[in-house]
Amino acid sequence: MTTGRDSVGQRSETVRRANLSAILRELHTSGSLSRSELVARTGLTRSAIRGLIGELVAADLVSEERAEPLGTPGRPSPLVHTNPEQAVVLALEIAVDSLAAAEVGLGGRVLDQMRVDRPRRDLAAGEIVADLVHLAAGLRRDHPTGEGLLGVGVAVVGVVRRSDGFVSTAPNLGWRDVPLGDRLRAGLGSAGPIAVANEADLGALAEVRRGAARGADDVLFVSGEVGVGGGIIVDGKPMTGAAGYGGEVGHIAVNPAGRPCRCGSTGCWETEVGEGALLLRAGRPVDGGRVEVNALLRDAAAGSRSALDAMHEVGRWLGIGLASLVNVLNPRVIVLGGLFGRIYPLVRETIEEELGRRALPAPGELVRIAPATLGLDAPLLGAAELAFEPLLADPSRWLPPHGMLALASA
Amino acid sequence: MTTGRDSVGQRSETVRRANLSAILRELHTSGSLSRSELVARTGLTRSAIRGLIGELVAADLVSEERAEPLGTPGRPSPLVHTNPEQAVVLALEIAVDSLAAAEVGLGGRVLDQMRVDRPRRDLAAGEIVADLVHLAAGLRRDHPTGEGLLGVGVAVVGVVRRSDGFVSTAPNLGWRDVPLGDRLRAGLGSAGPIAVANEADLGALAEVRRGAARGADDVLFVSGEVGVGGGIIVDGKPMTGAAGYGGEVGHIAVNPAGRPCRCGSTGCWETEVGEGALLLRAGRPVDGGRVEVNALLRDAAAGSRSALDAMHEVGRWLGIGLASLVNVLNPRVIVLGGLFGRIYPLVRETIEEELGRRALPAPGELVRIAPATLGLDAPLLGAAELAFEPLLADPSRWLPPHGMLALASA
Repeated sequence: MTTGRDSVGQRSETVRRANLSAILRELHTSGSLSRSELVARTGLTRSAIRGLIGELVAADLVSEERAEPLGTPGRPSPLVHTNPEQAVVLALEIAVDSLAAAEVGLGGRVLDQMRVDRPRRDLAAGEIVADLVHLAAGLRRDHPTGEGLLGVGVAVVGVVRRSDGFVSTAPNLGWRDVPLGDRLRAGLGSAGPIAVANEADLGALAEVRRGAARGADDVLFVSGEVGVGGGIIVDGKPMTGAAGYGGEVGHIAVNPAGRPCRCGSTGCWETEVGEGALLLRAGRPVDGGRVEVNALLRDAAAGSRSALDAMHEVGRWLGIGLASLVNVLNPRVIVLGGLFGRIYPLVRETIEEELGRRALPAPGELVRIAPATLGLDAPLLGAAELAFEPLLADPSRWLPPHGMLALASA
Repeated sequence: MTTGRDSVGQRSETVRRANLSAILRELHTSGSLSRSELVARTGLTRSAIRGLIGELVAADLVSEERAEPLGTPGRPSPLVHTNPEQAVVLALEIAVDSLAAAEVGLGGRVLDQMRVDRPRRDLAAGEIVADLVHLAAGLRRDHPTGEGLLGVGVAVVGVVRRSDGFVSTAPNLGWRDVPLGDRLRAGLGSAGPIAVANEADLGALAEVRRGAARGADDVLFVSGEVGVGGGIIVDGKPMTGAAGYGGEVGHIAVNPAGRPCRCGSTGCWETEVGEGALLLRAGRPVDGGRVEVNALLRDAAAGSRSALDAMHEVGRWLGIGLASLVNVLNPRVIVLGGLFGRIYPLVRETIEEELGRRALPAPGELVRIAPATLGLDAPLLGAAELAFEPLLADPSRWLPPHGMLALASA
């Protein structure tokens, strides 16, 4: 049997890690599951589940409760749940008009959260980072668990290199070549590893794990703000492209003879459906921001013809761009976030009409459109997911050495 | 140690399969490798490699040769190569103006190949399938190994549901709802499992495995013919979307006020850069096909102003669409196939200028454009890769039972 052992033996630790990861991912997404549900979802045997749960319990990452007898025959399956306070990440977000910070525990529980408006849009990168560090420090002062943070996830409205959190461009912040990862590392001190990603990519991740696209494997998240952000999930995983720059759907050229875009091109999707385009079409100040958008939405709800016309024109261009993306990506679900989620109930038919005309029949009939359910906080929650990723991918690094535990529990 | 074994034992067969798969994939892509190279590429130990190669040799899928001493110290590492004649697939292609069939052996060696023109474009699906079956039968009569075919891969210029090879639409064949997989199964008889996919998706796969994008993980393949096909590789794997319909880049809306497209929409990319658009711009018959395109290319090479102008206009729209896709997908390599590969040397600067203006700087600077190197046959070679996939994903199903072999070789 030498052949057999040789081809397997040195890899058994890999298998244990993969199984621990599968279990912890299920628990993290669901919060709590019975052992029987874990058997069903992971395909592992009952005894394997028992052993692996034992390891996670010993590390205090999860707890087991004896379930109440259900009146059904047989022993009730113990309920396993994550211990949110025992594995906490710091999530940060730099949006166009606000900064946010949250402490999130394993299982996705938000332990504390703060968001502050950023009324001035002309602040330099250094000032924004300082404000964000200040916000995070306030949060951590209230919650001393912040000392033992697992890591930090950061959502930023810009084009991010995943490897080191370098922001090559963030037109809506006025940034170019900002080493955001390095600056936050310097500012935050010993808060664990820092991972930075584009806010729409993280919004997509959050909506897939905990929101409107829960359970879907192929998802397009499109969020309208000043700019238009996109996040793409392929086969259950974020599609980041070769260097993490993927998903910039706001800059597909839908009208090459159209208006100039702040990216330097002309006729980008964002120039037809972004917040500014909506306000322009409604005859309101283009830079009016959330206040003007809210007023416009109120007018539309009250039946104002000009407000509704402006929205339908945005809806039409929204449908045009979505059709292109449906043809390229064949998503199961499109999640509309931000502005798009808010106007969706009013312009649903316009969007669907354009989609019906322009999407190829097969992918067009398959796709479902849903407004985002996590609201403004989707990118922040996605940033937390990003920070949990190392633990979820390989929980064994947070556990006591395997042999020790096996002996101890024998 | 019960805990440890329980969490691992029942999964060891999975690990063995994964390791066999990794080795056979490397050999299939490279043709031949030394044991040392296999160690380096797979991360497996020398003794694991030896055992697994032994299994593949026993199944006659690969052979080992003692390498010539190189004059370097130590024993030379034996060279392992695939046995192309021992695992053969049938690859078929339905292109707009031709049909093709090939027998391809493990390692990617083309054992035999035929392509016939399809001058009449108005044939019904049944007639095309009959012609293709006839072509395949001719090939297999010459090569009786066809009896033991591993499977059949089919490339078709249409929108394909991967699960059963159902073609929902193929505008350039005039098809709607054709159960191509079922029809070929009926026509080919006992030729093994049949997998059908879009021809550009398969062209992309072939260019990544054996052509212009070899070694790249994030690739966009765009091929110009009558229509425009696209294939997307994300993280080394074909991105097919939720049902296999992804990659239809010819139908992104680049000019919503433009010309009608045969898909029913208006201003699709295909209406600006397809073969018909090029001929139209050059004042030649739009349905002139390859003959007219060849004449146009000759004129352009001879310096004809009007021919070059037509090409530059196509190049400009090519750049516009590519920029959109670069922003969405962040590919490392764009492979231009078909018409686009042919005109690339003439319009390279025009494409790059438009890309420079419209792609975001970070993904724009990262991407490399390369003409396809596998030419007309890329989709056919990709169809072979598709048919090899079950063997490559799990070679153990083609091997003698594990325990038997281990005892025999002990």
